[in-house]
Amino acid sequence: MYRTNTCGELRLTDAGKQVTLAGWVQRIRKMGGMSFIDLRDRYGITQIVTENETLNESVSKLGREYVIQVTGTVKERQSKNSKIETGDIEVVLEKLNVLNPAEVPPFTIEDVSDGGEELRAKYRYLDLRRNPLKKALELRHRMAHEIRNYLDSQNFMEIETPYLIKSTPEGARDFVVPSRMNPGQFYALPQSPQQQKQLLMVAGYDRYFQIVRCFRDEDLRADRQPEFTQVDCEMSFVERDDVLEVFEGLIKTLFRNVLGKEFNEPFPRMPYSEAMDSYGSDKPDIRYDMRLHEITSLVKGHDFSVFDSVEYIGGISVSGGAAYTRKQVDELTEWVKRPQIGAKGLVYLRVNDDGSFKSSVDKFYTPEDLKAIAQACGAQKGDLVLILAGGKKKTQTALGALRLEMGNRLGLRDSSVYAPLWVVDFPLLEWDDETGRFYAMHHPFTAPKPEQLKEFYSDRKEDLEKVNANAYDFVLNGTEVGGGSIRIHDAEIQKRMFEVLGFTPEDADYRFGFMINAFQYGAPPHGGIAFCFDRFCALFAGQETIRDYIAFPKNNQGRDVMLDAPSRIDQVQMDELFLSSTCPNND
Amino acid sequence: MYRTNTCGELRLTDAGKQVTLAGWVQRIRKMGGMSFIDLRDRYGITQIVTENETLNESVSKLGREYVIQVTGTVKERQSKNSKIETGDIEVVLEKLNVLNPAEVPPFTIEDVSDGGEELRAKYRYLDLRRNPLKKALELRHRMAHEIRNYLDSQNFMEIETPYLIKSTPEGARDFVVPSRMNPGQFYALPQSPQQQKQLLMVAGYDRYFQIVRCFRDEDLRADRQPEFTQVDCEMSFVERDDVLEVFEGLIKTLFRNVLGKEFNEPFPRMPYSEAMDSYGSDKPDIRYDMRLHEITSLVKGHDFSVFDSVEYIGGISVSGGAAYTRKQVDELTEWVKRPQIGAKGLVYLRVNDDGSFKSSVDKFYTPEDLKAIAQACGAQKGDLVLILAGGKKKTQTALGALRLEMGNRLGLRDSSVYAPLWVVDFPLLEWDDETGRFYAMHHPFTAPKPEQLKEFYSDRKEDLEKVNANAYDFVLNGTEVGGGSIRIHDAEIQKRMFEVLGFTPEDADYRFGFMINAFQYGAPPHGGIAFCFDRFCALFAGQETIRDYIAFPKNNQGRDVMLDAPSRIDQVQMDELFLSSTCPNND
Repeated sequence: MYRTNTCGELRLTDAGKQVTLAGWVQRIRKMGGMSFIDLRDRYGITQIVTENETLNESVSKLGREYVIQVTGTVKERQSKNSKIETGDIEVVLEKLNVLNPAEVPPFTIEDVSDGGEELRAKYRYLDLRRNPLKKALELRHRMAHEIRNYLDSQNFMEIETPYLIKSTPEGARDFVVPSRMNPGQFYALPQSPQQQKQLLMVAGYDRYFQIVRCFRDEDLRADRQPEFTQVDCEMSFVERDDVLEVFEGLIKTLFRNVLGKEFNEPFPRMPYSEAMDSYGSDKPDIRYDMRLHEITSLVKGHDFSVFDSVEYIGGISVSGGAAYTRKQVDELTEWVKRPQIGAKGLVYLRVNDDGSFKSSVDKFYTPEDLKAIAQACGAQKGDLVLILAGGKKKTQTALGALRLEMGNRLGLRDSSVYAPLWVVDFPLLEWDDETGRFYAMHHPFTAPKPEQLKEFYSDRKEDLEKVNANAYDFVLNGTEVGGGSIRIHDAEIQKRMFEVLGFTPEDADYRFGFMINAFQYGAPPHGGIAFCFDRFCALFAGQETIRDYIAFPKNNQGRDVMLDAPSRIDQVQMDELFLSSTCPNND
Repeated sequence: MYRTNTCGELRLTDAGKQVTLAGWVQRIRKMGGMSFIDLRDRYGITQIVTENETLNESVSKLGREYVIQVTGTVKERQSKNSKIETGDIEVVLEKLNVLNPAEVPPFTIEDVSDGGEELRAKYRYLDLRRNPLKKALELRHRMAHEIRNYLDSQNFMEIETPYLIKSTPEGARDFVVPSRMNPGQFYALPQSPQQQKQLLMVAGYDRYFQIVRCFRDEDLRADRQPEFTQVDCEMSFVERDDVLEVFEGLIKTLFRNVLGKEFNEPFPRMPYSEAMDSYGSDKPDIRYDMRLHEITSLVKGHDFSVFDSVEYIGGISVSGGAAYTRKQVDELTEWVKRPQIGAKGLVYLRVNDDGSFKSSVDKFYTPEDLKAIAQACGAQKGDLVLILAGGKKKTQTALGALRLEMGNRLGLRDSSVYAPLWVVDFPLLEWDDETGRFYAMHHPFTAPKPEQLKEFYSDRKEDLEKVNANAYDFVLNGTEVGGGSIRIHDAEIQKRMFEVLGFTPEDADYRFGFMINAFQYGAPPHGGIAFCFDRFCALFAGQETIRDYIAFPKNNQGRDVMLDAPSRIDQVQMDELFLSSTCPNND
């Protein structure tokens, strides 16, 4: 062993001991005839000191990030540093051994580095030395460990499912893997172990989980990764509330053991319809109120053609917003007109401190009308009502986005506050005009609500659109962290589902034949949930971006900049796989 | 919830309670006016009984593997079944609810099934219902959980490394993944996270582990899988013995907590050279002795041309083997001549009970010569010495195989006995005549023994062949379960290693540039180990084949028979990936 102690370990009680430490040179300072080294390892920083001339000389040859081994005696410090746990002591240097020199790193290894994102990605192994990233990965380890302990205590078995499976293109694109031993054929990397975990229920495993990598070949948006980690779970002989109870227990345990936060009340549950109507989102941030209020019937028929011609008009009341200047309101108007939000315009209604009203539609409405609108939106004196109009879903969504923006501007989205929520009763199906067919809102194995089987077997599109799924999402602070459902365990209902989704029996059989088959041999009622582990970790740390919570992430082009992957492969490899490239710019 | 209790839970103390159970119909029996159902779930089997006529009628309509829900009252059994934990009670049926009917399964769901391997693979979800497979996966879950708890307690962090990395073809073939977003380029699936874990040490993570999937596109032999699971570990600021100590602690903890076996003594350590000389294997089964003895100098020069012409002659002494008939010895001779063993022939020397000798080479050797040979091989009266001759390594290996075979025949390889062993001091390099270059016996990052650096920098092949690696294998009962090494942390030594392996600087840079680079920014001394988790689990259960310890394994052609994967993919997918198939039989 190269050390007797770590750099985070020594305390005043160790004074007088001779110790050997090893680590990286964080910084070196000279003061008069003395040299100080801040020696860093994963566990902390210890100050090394010498006034010996020869040693001073050796220390002066060190550079930042040199790996060194030091032997010396622990001593109480004159001027203590209360910011670090070893701040009461220092080690008086007796022997210095350079284990490995280091080039000057291309950016500073500090909590806030001077390196740009690209540079830090290329030298990820140096970026990972920085404290915020180390804390992130420590949190991730702790979360995974707590999840496993809780689920083990609840009789869940972790069962590994294969990564080389069959391509069933429904939803996102699969990554595929050519098989050399089966020429012309491909494996697919799993988008999730959905089918395997359901088969494990058919196999009687009763309670399964896995912290597992999943793969999706999507066009990457910010903060999406082609490979991501899921906490994947499934249970047998359960109904929805059984699943929610077990996983609410998991989440509360994580809050308690990782963050020291107690949640004594049950998490609120909100139907999807309410989430859309009141928050304009299927993942409401309920840390603050500022709900959406529909005022369609209130404002129609006043000769304001914009309102008269649309399906839906709704507003939110921004507390204290009456103080917003005209310029600020104009800026908000521009904000809602951005393509990401897509509103045509913004109507405002200011409730002045004296109770009078000022709005951008004053000429169409009497003060009494305006008062009624303000009341409908719950606005008080000093508030500002912001109103959008258009198609219902689109406008609700835009209002929801505006609500979040106002929440940000007003500091209502405090990352140290946690507001967990279950969203339930999602629609089962989504109609796609382009392809002229229904898609499963979750996936084709999600059960319809048992009381809506009649509509599920109806031939009318309107009936099918009404069917709710026995599904649920776990939402934390406006981010969807988990989602799941009770599954179809009845072979007939599963066949009907494939029919509704427009699969021919042959198609369904080709893609999911083994599933349909399996369900004929005694499938128990079952359901489950999957959590996005990367996001869960980031949110627990009060962060929104996941990249810091992944040791070696890909960039927005799906590249590992450090490895320079993906890359060309040898022609020999291509030949062995019976593949040739049709890539036009393949030189 | 569909049940109040599981099928493994009820005891005599529950008598009188009304309960609801759910599970699968294991079997139904009729006796007079009574029906009995053995109801099975993951947790056990509970007997359900009724003498009610209506219920009898319902029960008679059930079939094997139907999923049912029963409500009834717990009652003490008349005739108890001590073989199952619920054997003291039965549940008197009050209500029966069929949750899902089942087709008759294609094979019996019993400890020993009547289904062939192929059929059971296709219906893996039914095979997984059988008790031996359930026990196997339960053991695997328990092992993984204990490993994580131990390593967490030792300050190891589990850090997930990417599955989509860069192809660095050295050793086995990579599975590759075409990148749609980077046309003409491919990711590779990792053969192990070797480079990532070393970079984590460079990044200062100090103690890393991961239970991680690895991929190798090899021509599959029996009991090899294209994807397999590794317990992958790495530590910084350590020397060999530090690593062995930590992981010996892990293994002892597993023995204690999973199997209830205590190992109070340190595991033996054996140099590779001794393993080869004494056991003819780099992974000796030391549950029994029967060592190899070299008798080359003893037997040469007696005009027996077979012996005089070879490099090495060695023998093993089979205790009690003098009783072997001529026919049995002939059969052994055939056995060693099989291509897998490859010996030219077998010489035997029988030590009769009266102390006289009988051998197949009597005419070349006097009784005194034979006595000396017997003594050299440690043979006693009643023993049989089996002798092979030829090139040294090949003959030692053949003798090692014969030793295992004799161990099997004599019942010396008791699967309930565990003989752990560290094998150390492996050669660093292996010369390959075909390509005329050295290959790394472990991998290119394995450090040479520090005291042999002079030979490592020598230009002479003979010197390089002498260099030992600072490497170690963990061997259990003749199977290599783990292996690792102290790594090269010095950029210069790493460059020399690439040079010895015949990589041009450009080649080394293309493949491992980021590693060479990383090592210039302060790499700590480090080393690690990886365990084959599939095999570890199988061995802990006293089994040699790993397939039962993997929920959804591939067959010998690398196929998932249940999913029917790999399979063709759509032309659309091919086009998106800029790929075309050159497969001749691609219809």
